[in-house]
Amino acid sequence: MEYTKITSDILAQITQIIGAQNVFTDEESLGNYAHDETEDLKYYPEVVVKPTDANQISALLRLCNANHIPLTPRGGGTGLSGAALPIYGGILLSMEKFKAIIDIDTENLQATVEPGVITEDFINAVGEHGLLYPVDPSSKGSCFIGGNVAHGSGGPRVVKYGTIREYILNLEVVLPTGEIIWTGANTLKYASGYNLTQMMIGSEGTLGVVTKIVTKLVPKPQQSVLMLASFGENEKACAAVSAIFRAGIVPSALEFMERKGVEWVIKFDDIKFDLKPDVNAFLLIEFDGDDMDTIFKDCEKVNLVLEQFECRDVLFADTTQQKEDLWRMRRTMAESVKSNSVYKEEDTVVPRAALPKLINGIKEIGSRYGFESVCYGHAGDGNLHINIIKAGMSDADWKNKLKDGIVEIFELTSALGGTISGEHGIGLVQKEFMPIKYSEVNLNLMRGIKSIFDPNGILNPGKIF
Amino acid sequence: MEYTKITSDILAQITQIIGAQNVFTDEESLGNYAHDETEDLKYYPEVVVKPTDANQISALLRLCNANHIPLTPRGGGTGLSGAALPIYGGILLSMEKFKAIIDIDTENLQATVEPGVITEDFINAVGEHGLLYPVDPSSKGSCFIGGNVAHGSGGPRVVKYGTIREYILNLEVVLPTGEIIWTGANTLKYASGYNLTQMMIGSEGTLGVVTKIVTKLVPKPQQSVLMLASFGENEKACAAVSAIFRAGIVPSALEFMERKGVEWVIKFDDIKFDLKPDVNAFLLIEFDGDDMDTIFKDCEKVNLVLEQFECRDVLFADTTQQKEDLWRMRRTMAESVKSNSVYKEEDTVVPRAALPKLINGIKEIGSRYGFESVCYGHAGDGNLHINIIKAGMSDADWKNKLKDGIVEIFELTSALGGTISGEHGIGLVQKEFMPIKYSEVNLNLMRGIKSIFDPNGILNPGKIF
Repeated sequence: MEYTKITSDILAQITQIIGAQNVFTDEESLGNYAHDETEDLKYYPEVVVKPTDANQISALLRLCNANHIPLTPRGGGTGLSGAALPIYGGILLSMEKFKAIIDIDTENLQATVEPGVITEDFINAVGEHGLLYPVDPSSKGSCFIGGNVAHGSGGPRVVKYGTIREYILNLEVVLPTGEIIWTGANTLKYASGYNLTQMMIGSEGTLGVVTKIVTKLVPKPQQSVLMLASFGENEKACAAVSAIFRAGIVPSALEFMERKGVEWVIKFDDIKFDLKPDVNAFLLIEFDGDDMDTIFKDCEKVNLVLEQFECRDVLFADTTQQKEDLWRMRRTMAESVKSNSVYKEEDTVVPRAALPKLINGIKEIGSRYGFESVCYGHAGDGNLHINIIKAGMSDADWKNKLKDGIVEIFELTSALGGTISGEHGIGLVQKEFMPIKYSEVNLNLMRGIKSIFDPNGILNPGKIF
Repeated sequence: MEYTKITSDILAQITQIIGAQNVFTDEESLGNYAHDETEDLKYYPEVVVKPTDANQISALLRLCNANHIPLTPRGGGTGLSGAALPIYGGILLSMEKFKAIIDIDTENLQATVEPGVITEDFINAVGEHGLLYPVDPSSKGSCFIGGNVAHGSGGPRVVKYGTIREYILNLEVVLPTGEIIWTGANTLKYASGYNLTQMMIGSEGTLGVVTKIVTKLVPKPQQSVLMLASFGENEKACAAVSAIFRAGIVPSALEFMERKGVEWVIKFDDIKFDLKPDVNAFLLIEFDGDDMDTIFKDCEKVNLVLEQFECRDVLFADTTQQKEDLWRMRRTMAESVKSNSVYKEEDTVVPRAALPKLINGIKEIGSRYGFESVCYGHAGDGNLHINIIKAGMSDADWKNKLKDGIVEIFELTSALGGTISGEHGIGLVQKEFMPIKYSEVNLNLMRGIKSIFDPNGILNPGKIF
């Protein structure tokens, strides 16, 4: 696609709109916003802007729309699919100055928040009012809530509390053509025409720039118990997952971790953990609620299930510190694995009973192509992150043959009823794989929807399809 | 809009596609499908068809698309917004022969079901496997699950279990241009491009015809308690609603009923109920779970809240029969009210703490315009159904002035952060009110999305916008 380069005249207009102090063209700034956390990809924008209100974004998008300049919105830069990379240059729009928690409405259990708020800050702020916002991706300490909306992000608590789609009630959005709209209403239910709020969620910044977010909140549970169950085999651990739900148990988190992931966390981080030699897989299981008796009953029930899958050992985290250590182990796993090797990350999701077939298939494919893999993730949702590790693969094979292996992984995922991303999105790096799962008819519907919102294709071009 | 009338030649082609035994043009059949449950509206189709598989629907839509013939899909005919009325004539497509529960997947806690299955039949079928599908609108005994998808339907258990959007994982859809697609994947999470599944939900049969539905299921709770709390005033009952959630309590249902609604149920139905003279409003509160101790703790907590709002009396339904009677009272309320008077039904939804202002406002507007109203609904979600009763209003005023009163109700709803429909949809009768809440920009986005799915505007034309 051909876009207009930013001339000094256009730059002057951008500066007029945003204010000189929030417009950056120095090499260091451009470099800082040339990448996210997707492998080692780098795309330099021509200019970085940090607007402070929706009207500035509106004026900027009108300018881009009139002059055919690409604009790429960016949240915390923690994305894993390259959705925030300015692949055609143009303007990189950082939302980092949209930092206000505008309102925590304790009467209605709702909040209004700007998209540049760090997810964990928001969780903590509502927590002080005894409320829970249960959407907490592993990157919660640095990702923005706006990025979570853009990607339909999840996290461990989806399994009990539902996806982000249940928690986003209404959005203020600047359209690519410059209009500012609210997509819906501040209500728990909505049947008032096409649901534009849901349309925005997971659209990866290609349909509009979110400038305010109204969320649902729920009462914060007072108690929780965290258990770490260890298994001799991946397959047994994965098979236990669906059995837990079949037994009528709904944990507030149910995470899977491979031994190798834990090994690398121990190496990378300073977590003390006694990793026994015969253990190859773990399930991290959390129950929350207000009543410890009920929680303990769930723990007992889950123990009975785990025994059927040759669970070796169950560790109960009693103290806050122990709980935090175990969660840190899970949350820093991606970072730890990546610090050790050239890697590629995939985000498969399947119906949860298909997890054993998925993990066995991944290992089998890896053995044929010569790559290793470390798998972990939100097993309760059937969502398995795969860190593919270069290991003994030659540079040439990594470059030329890996893709075929990934295609095989996604073909397997699709055959099991799954899809190619559960929460990381498609962005730049997964779009070539979309046809594995979705027909040209599906993709054309998406392209058509895009053309309605963004007739000139200026907003985050080159992503998803 | 101008559409082609069905000629004998076209009818022959329709008959060829669907089979003569499933094509109806006799007056009785046309009359049976000329109305739904929306007031007294009647629009006759030119032909009624009852296809038996998706390929027939595909061929039919190709025929309609090529010849510019309107086609209106219809579920159980229980709609309250006129969305299934064939206002331009043409073909009425009844989904009543799509009656198969294809699969109840007890491994993955999912089911695949055809859209013509009656919602209650589906709930009972999964219940036999110890599973819960918690989307149960009041019309569950006669509505179709496909209609529920089309309308984003709710019901009392949304308050704990989330909306239908959490339970619909994947849809097989015939597009207006005839292609058959699956909208997504059979997974609990999805971040693989624009969410076409969510786009279909609540689109009221204007974007495609759903032919298969994959749902999420959850373990069925083993126990429940149902309480009926009575109040002297509507406002106090409504104010108690948000206080319950603020106290950290999440019931599995929290319904509001006005005295007049109960009076008319007693008249219409054969329910025995001792309606005390000083009681004017009720909250029907349900808790479910596996553990009676926990449920009783919730009951105690909720009692403490209710006391603060001058609750008169709390009745505990002990037996299955008592529970069923109370639920029947709530569920037959619409029918009972309608059997007594000329009426119009609205489906307001606001942030739940705004309920007292909403109900007081409705009464005040009614007193100025001369209509009465009976209010009831899913108060836990802020969703209040309003049956507007003609009462002393003259025929002329009912015809000419009522609309202004409804506009005032919706303006109030909107000012309180709410919207004009929570679960009944917009269809035909609410579309004139959409501009009260949504800008022309919003409506044009909806029209644009419609044009992408249905370039010739043949599928359920004249609805929503």
